[in-house]
Amino acid sequence: MAIGEIKELPKSWAMLGGDGPESYTQNSSYQKGVVDASMEMVDDGIMEKLDLKSLGFESTNDTFRIADFGCSVGPNTFFAVENIMKAVERKHLAQFNNSAALSGFQVFFNDVTTNDFNTLFKALHSNEKYFSAGVPGTFFGRLLPRSTLHFAHSSYCLHWLSKVPKEVLDSESPAWNKGSIQCDGLKKEVTKAYSAQFQSDMNTFLKARAQEIVGGGLMVIITGGLPDGVLMSQAGIGMYYDLLGSCLINSVEAKPWRLKKS
Amino acid sequence: MAIGEIKELPKSWAMLGGDGPESYTQNSSYQKGVVDASMEMVDDGIMEKLDLKSLGFESTNDTFRIADFGCSVGPNTFFAVENIMKAVERKHLAQFNNSAALSGFQVFFNDVTTNDFNTLFKALHSNEKYFSAGVPGTFFGRLLPRSTLHFAHSSYCLHWLSKVPKEVLDSESPAWNKGSIQCDGLKKEVTKAYSAQFQSDMNTFLKARAQEIVGGGLMVIITGGLPDGVLMSQAGIGMYYDLLGSCLINSVEAKPWRLKKS
Repeated sequence: MAIGEIKELPKSWAMLGGDGPESYTQNSSYQKGVVDASMEMVDDGIMEKLDLKSLGFESTNDTFRIADFGCSVGPNTFFAVENIMKAVERKHLAQFNNSAALSGFQVFFNDVTTNDFNTLFKALHSNEKYFSAGVPGTFFGRLLPRSTLHFAHSSYCLHWLSKVPKEVLDSESPAWNKGSIQCDGLKKEVTKAYSAQFQSDMNTFLKARAQEIVGGGLMVIITGGLPDGVLMSQAGIGMYYDLLGSCLINSVEAKPWRLKKS
Repeated sequence: MAIGEIKELPKSWAMLGGDGPESYTQNSSYQKGVVDASMEMVDDGIMEKLDLKSLGFESTNDTFRIADFGCSVGPNTFFAVENIMKAVERKHLAQFNNSAALSGFQVFFNDVTTNDFNTLFKALHSNEKYFSAGVPGTFFGRLLPRSTLHFAHSSYCLHWLSKVPKEVLDSESPAWNKGSIQCDGLKKEVTKAYSAQFQSDMNTFLKARAQEIVGGGLMVIITGGLPDGVLMSQAGIGMYYDLLGSCLINSVEAKPWRLKKS
């Protein structure tokens, strides 16, 4: 296979499972930093915006249901949902002065079917204070019944598109992205193709969550971004990906037989 | 380690995962037969006993929630829950003449944490007509929020006790079960110890499900049994286990170094 003849790519990727030295579990301190940095904002958002009275928690003893979309194998998902639970309990206390008791929590851990749920489940604390369930499937689609979720969370996942836009894989297209493994922002047609894909994916994600979340529920989305006018190729992470991309292409050019053999 | 000095046993076992030649997936045709044999009774039970009106399905568009306790890795769990769904749809049609629409189904697949959920999730049909979730943990305990389940199912699982009664592992006890890997029914004290363990486990199982199932919900338990007066050692399966047990003990006695090395 020569460069330029790119075959169909898999439809979904999962982080490397297990808990070995190369696993996501052992290599997700950056993502943990993102969760840590957002904690205070999440706490404040719950205190200000979450109205447990309008959700019916004063009169009924319903279970508060949380989902983490794109949870991977842990441990960051556990920190994130435990922080949400603590904030909801604080809000409950503030709103009802402990006159009504929260029945408890149920947490849905979602990621693509190829995610390592075995490792995730083994890492769940056995003395956990909440009911847990794993939900396999892409979050670019419905995953839970209508109006059943009180809090949706997704941290550092929505930059994963559902697919690479087909134009950037087509060497005949003006959006052909030869020489780059990312949308570096230098070619207008490539940017447009990636932007359209992101828009379509976000639309699908939001429509699905809108059906799953109860009226008055909350959603927190944590995702990377760049200020207007800054190209991906000008940002630190963008430079890193360009370097990684050129290394990958060099290694393919230097050893083409490896690909021919496969 | 000599025979008689049995160390602490693991608290839960799971069926062999994956889908290789020795996997549960490839070696569960007997259990499939059990599911098949029970289908008609399950259908009849749903038609006769499940009152969707009293469950509120005429006025609300709730999702019908099913759990399979002790689901293993498939594929039997899929046959079982799909059969339940078809029967519920038939009952819905019979009860409401299609005037109200069932919102859909959510299925909770439960087994111990060491179950191979990765294989289970990969085997789920991508075009499935229900929302699915994996629930890790022993069914001898609460797994789901209070009053959220409409149908509980457990096929060929409740013969797995939560633990081996400690008396049968104690060489000083009159219930010491030396020479048998099962309760063959020949020694009164052993039978009593196993019976007490089963009674305690069933009690725990039923109490947990009683909290999880909504009022008017149904439960189906399919489990093996023997007629009164028939000992395990007189039944075909009992003879098989006795033979297997003696083979295991012979192989340990013939090669004690294997255990000493571990």
